Amino acid sequence: MAKVAPRTLSGFMELNPAPQVQMETMMDVLRKTYALYGFTPLDTPVIESSEVLLAKGGGETEKQIYRFQKGDADLSLRFDLTVPLAKYVALHYNELSFPFRRFQIGKVYRGERAQRGRFREFYQADIDVIGDGKLDIINEAEIPSIIYKTFSALGLKRFRICVNNRKILNGFYAMLGLTEQAPEIMRTVDKLDKIGAEKVFKILTEDVSVSPENAHEILNFIQISGSDQQVLQELDVYKGRNPVFDSGLEELTTVVRYLSAFGVPEENFAVDLTIARGLDYYTGTVYETTLLDYPEIGSVCSGGRYDNLAEYYTEKQLPGVGISIGLTRLFYVLGEQKLLNPDLNTAPADVLILPMTDDLSHAVALATLLRENGVRTQLHCEQKKFKQKISYADKLGIPYVIFLGEDEINAGVVACKELATGEQTKLDAKATIYRIKAGLDAKAGGTVIVER
Amino acid sequence: MAKVAPRTLSGFMELNPAPQVQMETMMDVLRKTYALYGFTPLDTPVIESSEVLLAKGGGETEKQIYRFQKGDADLSLRFDLTVPLAKYVALHYNELSFPFRRFQIGKVYRGERAQRGRFREFYQADIDVIGDGKLDIINEAEIPSIIYKTFSALGLKRFRICVNNRKILNGFYAMLGLTEQAPEIMRTVDKLDKIGAEKVFKILTEDVSVSPENAHEILNFIQISGSDQQVLQELDVYKGRNPVFDSGLEELTTVVRYLSAFGVPEENFAVDLTIARGLDYYTGTVYETTLLDYPEIGSVCSGGRYDNLAEYYTEKQLPGVGISIGLTRLFYVLGEQKLLNPDLNTAPADVLILPMTDDLSHAVALATLLRENGVRTQLHCEQKKFKQKISYADKLGIPYVIFLGEDEINAGVVACKELATGEQTKLDAKATIYRIKAGLDAKAGGTVIVER
Repeated sequence: MAKVAPRTLSGFMELNPAPQVQMETMMDVLRKTYALYGFTPLDTPVIESSEVLLAKGGGETEKQIYRFQKGDADLSLRFDLTVPLAKYVALHYNELSFPFRRFQIGKVYRGERAQRGRFREFYQADIDVIGDGKLDIINEAEIPSIIYKTFSALGLKRFRICVNNRKILNGFYAMLGLTEQAPEIMRTVDKLDKIGAEKVFKILTEDVSVSPENAHEILNFIQISGSDQQVLQELDVYKGRNPVFDSGLEELTTVVRYLSAFGVPEENFAVDLTIARGLDYYTGTVYETTLLDYPEIGSVCSGGRYDNLAEYYTEKQLPGVGISIGLTRLFYVLGEQKLLNPDLNTAPADVLILPMTDDLSHAVALATLLRENGVRTQLHCEQKKFKQKISYADKLGIPYVIFLGEDEINAGVVACKELATGEQTKLDAKATIYRIKAGLDAKAGGTVIVER
Repeated sequence: MAKVAPRTLSGFMELNPAPQVQMETMMDVLRKTYALYGFTPLDTPVIESSEVLLAKGGGETEKQIYRFQKGDADLSLRFDLTVPLAKYVALHYNELSFPFRRFQIGKVYRGERAQRGRFREFYQADIDVIGDGKLDIINEAEIPSIIYKTFSALGLKRFRICVNNRKILNGFYAMLGLTEQAPEIMRTVDKLDKIGAEKVFKILTEDVSVSPENAHEILNFIQISGSDQQVLQELDVYKGRNPVFDSGLEELTTVVRYLSAFGVPEENFAVDLTIARGLDYYTGTVYETTLLDYPEIGSVCSGGRYDNLAEYYTEKQLPGVGISIGLTRLFYVLGEQKLLNPDLNTAPADVLILPMTDDLSHAVALATLLRENGVRTQLHCEQKKFKQKISYADKLGIPYVIFLGEDEINAGVVACKELATGEQTKLDAKATIYRIKAGLDAKAGGTVIVER
């Protein structure tokens, strides 16, 4: 028969079993951490009607969308989890209780140009808190805590959650009479790290038609830095000149005030006035998270406060705050940087049973007993050489191998070998289970990510 | 602004938060049970190249496929998890160890005509064991055990795993010289329950040109029933007439022999000669699972043994055995039949904290402490009436509410109310956590499914 060459589309991550277990472990950590903060899991379709999904319309994303006809229907694959959330909340408004706290880990699709480390199908892990009409600032203050706990639980230490407030920026530019140019100014200022202050000054004055005085003011403002308290103090100087600015400063002060009660260490947090987030719809606190040793990766967890989640679907005012982790890209980058823990247990089983008799009843009964005791067990009854079977366990990282021959069966014992140490015991089934479980407990733990 | 009416496509399941938790719990049970049997989790792309996905070509499925162009690429959404597995094993053959045991829970897509209880996007939960060249019969014998443990863990009791062997059927029809007509005969015989023996006889003799003698033989054969041992004994009569039949009978005998060692109770298992499974590629043991009180639902977990998983992609002989649960449909049906446990804890949090002071530091610190102790905690700081907040906890099923006012803070205690009983305690934080965790433990347990 003529064969079709098997292949996986470029830009689509497909992992081998061991890294897949690492990826699943990451997702588990996220699910558990989000649950601790009272978020409920949600699942929405991958396919939506194009009319609904593209209600906002325009923008860079639209070109990247997987859009197609099926019968009469104009369909699109979701390109993020925010638009489906907006639709969900608008559609199910009457069945939900607000504030509505949900997390969603799901695949999204963007037909970007294929390049290393860019994916067309990738997981996003999102949390959002949606209010009905209003939403208290404490929700914005809680987000750094969630980011901190999430990355800590994954095993990261050297990361920083950077926070700013859009009202501070908008208020500041309003003071200078530059409200209209603000978006363009922010885009320019965002390049400060890359192109330097002089170049930014040049673009501001020449291309964005900002006066030299204002350009200086902007550069001074944007470069305010130091400890969180120092930054807040320097910002205090601008107070009283614009109500939006004042409100933003108050919010930022609140976010900073509760940090320690929320368990966020100072070294994992910074007020950073250069952060604006590209998206237009953020209106308050904005977040970015960077790995201190890998700044080139950019933000690995971003988000912010918005005033109107579902304005394209409903008259209801639905303010919220949310963050998103691009999980597939993060996983890829962690792998590239060799930050994934090679000692994480990725074996598909804890024990491999090698029956040495024709009648398998005893081996099967032992496997059943092990499983009933929560030990992940595989029977290996293929016609292969003994050495091959041991090598199989070895390759998969299965820590224990059990041999069950006539002698053992007659003596009522089980021969159990720990592959790493070579230590072999002959104990009855119960004692063997006890030994294996103790060994597994000792080996357990260890985070997905290990920093060098 | 003009609004777009929010809607979810018909045939796409989108659950409210509480049922979503039930669904997630089901998936968790599946993941845990599959892991106990040494299956490793796998994830493959939802989109594949059409050439790869449709390598087999033809068939009913092709019309239902979501297929579209993106740039130059001819793409399709996967319609099951078997074809992607075949591609995966062929593509990653050199990186895998065999037997390769994987499970996958993922969404698949079929553009069927929309009707109640039929879904266009639905989860399948599959397990497969793939051998390299050969695969021992014990793997086929193990499958009923996995099905049994899975459904038991979900909470079902009244179900039956029905097993047959394609070799027995093929061998039997070969004895009668009816090999060519066998597929059509099996399709006809499959309708026995629905249309009765007389009608089957009529179709066999008139439409499939089977002689009346053979039609009688077929009907007698297919209606062999009784205990597993009785069926095997009656089949013994046919032995020695066809090697394929004999081999099938030996396999079926092996599957039955190990049942009790695999922990499968007799009442949950039956040899059923009417089962053939529609798909052509099954070659040995085949499985169906029916809910005894809801036979009209059909099989909720099916599969079988096949000889050649990836014949469209590779010359390698890759025999395997697998089963699949149509999870979305099962969930829907369970809901319709009111079999989902209404007492399952679906609350997004264990505790709702209501701060009664302007400064939230104490409340935040308490929330942090609770979370560090594994208690899922939500702070409720919105400007709403006290009654509304209690009603919020009530609606979401959050079992405990904590009030934290000046008095409590000054006294170093926490007022904690269990909503179900109204019981209120004023204890310090540690004792409160202890009380809550004990209460949660007492409430825990309970399966997703509860039979009446």
